[in-house]
Amino acid sequence: MPDSRFYRRAGPFRLGDLAGWCGATATPGTDVGTMLHDVANIDTAGPQDITYFGDPRYTVAFATTRAGACITTQAFAAHAPKGCALLITSSPREAFAEISTRFYPEQPAANSLGSGFIAADATLEPGVTIAPGAVIGPGAKIGQGTRIESCAVIGPGVIVGNDCRIGSNTTLTYCIVGDRVVLHPGVCIGQDGFGFVRTAQGLKKVPQLGRVLIGDDVEIGANSTVDRGAAGDTVIGAGTKIDNLVQIAHNAQIGERCIIVSQAGVAGSCRIGNDVVIGGQVGVVEHVKVGDGAQIAGKAGVTRDIAPGEVVMGVPAKPIRQFWREVAALSRLTKRDKAP
Amino acid sequence: MPDSRFYRRAGPFRLGDLAGWCGATATPGTDVGTMLHDVANIDTAGPQDITYFGDPRYTVAFATTRAGACITTQAFAAHAPKGCALLITSSPREAFAEISTRFYPEQPAANSLGSGFIAADATLEPGVTIAPGAVIGPGAKIGQGTRIESCAVIGPGVIVGNDCRIGSNTTLTYCIVGDRVVLHPGVCIGQDGFGFVRTAQGLKKVPQLGRVLIGDDVEIGANSTVDRGAAGDTVIGAGTKIDNLVQIAHNAQIGERCIIVSQAGVAGSCRIGNDVVIGGQVGVVEHVKVGDGAQIAGKAGVTRDIAPGEVVMGVPAKPIRQFWREVAALSRLTKRDKAP
Amino acid sequence: MPDSRFYRRAGPFRLGDLAGWCGATATPGTDVGTMLHDVANIDTAGPQDITYFGDPRYTVAFATTRAGACITTQAFAAHAPKGCALLITSSPREAFAEISTRFYPEQPAANSLGSGFIAADATLEPGVTIAPGAVIGPGAKIGQGTRIESCAVIGPGVIVGNDCRIGSNTTLTYCIVGDRVVLHPGVCIGQDGFGFVRTAQGLKKVPQLGRVLIGDDVEIGANSTVDRGAAGDTVIGAGTKIDNLVQIAHNAQIGERCIIVSQAGVAGSCRIGNDVVIGGQVGVVEHVKVGDGAQIAGKAGVTRDIAPGEVVMGVPAKPIRQFWREVAALSRLTKRDKAP
Repeated sequence: MPDSRFYRRAGPFRLGDLAGWCGATATPGTDVGTMLHDVANIDTAGPQDITYFGDPRYTVAFATTRAGACITTQAFAAHAPKGCALLITSSPREAFAEISTRFYPEQPAANSLGSGFIAADATLEPGVTIAPGAVIGPGAKIGQGTRIESCAVIGPGVIVGNDCRIGSNTTLTYCIVGDRVVLHPGVCIGQDGFGFVRTAQGLKKVPQLGRVLIGDDVEIGANSTVDRGAAGDTVIGAGTKIDNLVQIAHNAQIGERCIIVSQAGVAGSCRIGNDVVIGGQVGVVEHVKVGDGAQIAGKAGVTRDIAPGEVVMGVPAKPIRQFWREVAALSRLTKRDKAP
Repeated sequence: MPDSRFYRRAGPFRLGDLAGWCGATATPGTDVGTMLHDVANIDTAGPQDITYFGDPRYTVAFATTRAGACITTQAFAAHAPKGCALLITSSPREAFAEISTRFYPEQPAANSLGSGFIAADATLEPGVTIAPGAVIGPGAKIGQGTRIESCAVIGPGVIVGNDCRIGSNTTLTYCIVGDRVVLHPGVCIGQDGFGFVRTAQGLKKVPQLGRVLIGDDVEIGANSTVDRGAAGDTVIGAGTKIDNLVQIAHNAQIGERCIIVSQAGVAGSCRIGNDVVIGGQVGVVEHVKVGDGAQIAGKAGVTRDIAPGEVVMGVPAKPIRQFWREVAALSRLTKRDKAP
Repeated sequence: MPDSRFYRRAGPFRLGDLAGWCGATATPGTDVGTMLHDVANIDTAGPQDITYFGDPRYTVAFATTRAGACITTQAFAAHAPKGCALLITSSPREAFAEISTRFYPEQPAANSLGSGFIAADATLEPGVTIAPGAVIGPGAKIGQGTRIESCAVIGPGVIVGNDCRIGSNTTLTYCIVGDRVVLHPGVCIGQDGFGFVRTAQGLKKVPQLGRVLIGDDVEIGANSTVDRGAAGDTVIGAGTKIDNLVQIAHNAQIGERCIIVSQAGVAGSCRIGNDVVIGGQVGVVEHVKVGDGAQIAGKAGVTRDIAPGEVVMGVPAKPIRQFWREVAALSRLTKRDKAP
């Protein structure tokens, strides 16, 4: 499933070998000679893929997965659908990280640039401007009329659309950028997401095999960061405007025409609807859904789903009128407390 | 009014043409043949300028504006001063954005650098050091004794004073920097502010036509960002010290000898006095005034003006003693609630 | 004590000269001809060093210091150990800043790079890959198998270990990096910490003479910043993983295998234990100690020491169950207030 533009897959591998590499045990009767061709998410995996299941939130997805094989715990095994081979371990995510590394070993540095700054096999369409010091990696493609500013670094395989402006000192990797996109200086797109498993040997990296997809007419402010997906993609919807120093974590999906103000952070796997406004310094925790047209006031800490059109504030975020009622009540309380 | 060093103006334009381009209607009896030469803020506009008025906070400025023409709504029209031609629309700011784009269309990429990293017409005074990989744009001027580190990108027309240190991977555009200024690595100065109007076609950019002015002896920490003004300038006063990852938005005016600690954010059009201390992760909302010598404790959310010398904390920010009283009262409340 | 790899020391100087330069007065009977060779922290200074004492938190260290000389106030002088020459002033930290500048005057730009991007005396071990546009400073050393991405800037004297990946547009100065370290794009390591003294002439820089030490297997996210120590070092322990846009201030000491989530900030001189989890947008104030295995929930403001294993949340940070009790109590309070 990872994009072959960015990732080179090894394999296929025997189920038995996979089990051995990650310290899991096939359930009795499993054909360990089955060949697996790829890693995949539980909801998109097909019969040739291996996935994992270790979080009760995905119980329904597990029961209906079409995956050829799944790494899970003994306790969860009962919920498996028929025809899905099981590898049992106490740490499914750690085991899946190990297997992902087998399918997608780190590539040797490409470096087909030689001593030049623009790779020989990069595609520059008509009207592209490349400022001095910019670096265009192998296989990258820059659309017509786009301007790449000085010291911008466009990584291998990256696609940038037409009429974009890519600011100085930006770094773009593992991403596909639409038309008329503005990335301000210092923006970092597509680096590894922050995914680790705690193991006996310390924190182990979960391979990050997705991309960042940036829609048309998006604007991203100076020194903001957008991590690529772990499996699947991080998505910024068309027409969304992001301010400076904002963090968008792996697999977050931001809708269209959203406004995200400076220093806000959206954690992993959040789903933000269309026309949402996220105020400055807001934090949204992992896996939260925010409905269309919702507004989150500055400095809020969003710890639960937000309904469409809802307006919230505070830590934890609550309806904004309730927030201000509590502010007033607390203020009155100190007066009451001071009374004799 | 925008600085001709950075912006090239088109026009002059007939009032009638301007009305047509932005979908506004001249009030009856207006001479639509009047020529307008520039866009300007309501308080600084002169007889040859066109401005806009759509925010009741500026009612006084509207009543006394010297602008030749003003875009406003039907409801506000009654407050106009005599002699100011009016263009009526339901969305004055959107219309003004459109007109600003006519006066200041985006320039084609200068690119007079050719293949070199230092533009032929840049001025380097005696004793300037340019480290490898730094890029100096056309018309830029670097003062004596200043050191530009590697991969710093100095944009077209930028002026840097004497004895400055401009760190690696910084990006400077649309700014004028004083003497003895230190910009740490990764700082971004002068990019577009975050100004958008919601229109039927999505979020429309308001042209950002100001500059950033940085006083003598200022220091700005790594990866901090300072946006340029929309109209008028963003100003950092002499001797002010800014820590890492701080955001200063468009048109903010920071006084002298202030301290702004890491990850704080100052929103658009704030006016911060002299000798103010802003703690880490503080947020100050738009248009707030903070008096001389005020102190804002870490993580505060400032939603109102702060008096000179006031010391505040909390979200919303309140006098610091009141903040701690409320913390204590809330703690006591949980004990009371638990009592039978 | 500062690392001669990065700093060149002047001196030795006569105690009398030092007193004159910083406007302090030697106590009666002091031999002003004593030669001092270096500046040092109060707890590590030896007989040839001069230090300062101005903060009651360090009273014990003062009483037992082995420093040859110490700058302090009249009020504190009584606590001095025998044999330690005293220089008396009303502003010990300001005076020490002045003396530090005498011992470590700013160096002229090295610039031994000439027009190339890799200094002639840099050491690149076998298997190092340097991408186009990267700059390697004089005396720097890059360990085998390490990859330096485009427009990364490795400063003079910096040591990077084996099998590291140093991202694009990073800036490394005054640091020593272990093996298998990943620095994502835009990371800034080793710049000046945010240390200033308020003087009659404005804010005066305290020279920052330490380094950053980064342990093996550390990962630091995009656009994060780690300042170098003022005296002594900023330390990131082995196996610790830091997310994007995080700030680590001067002299902070982070333990091993910690997780620090996006946009958190750790202030100066904090000591964070091993296996600590710091949530997103957390702020930790200066000089705080956090015990092994503690967990700090997102957006907390830590104003006091945290015990090993403690789990805290809120501003100020408190035990997480107490935080949620207070949230519930405040919510109930608004209902009570509304009752007739």
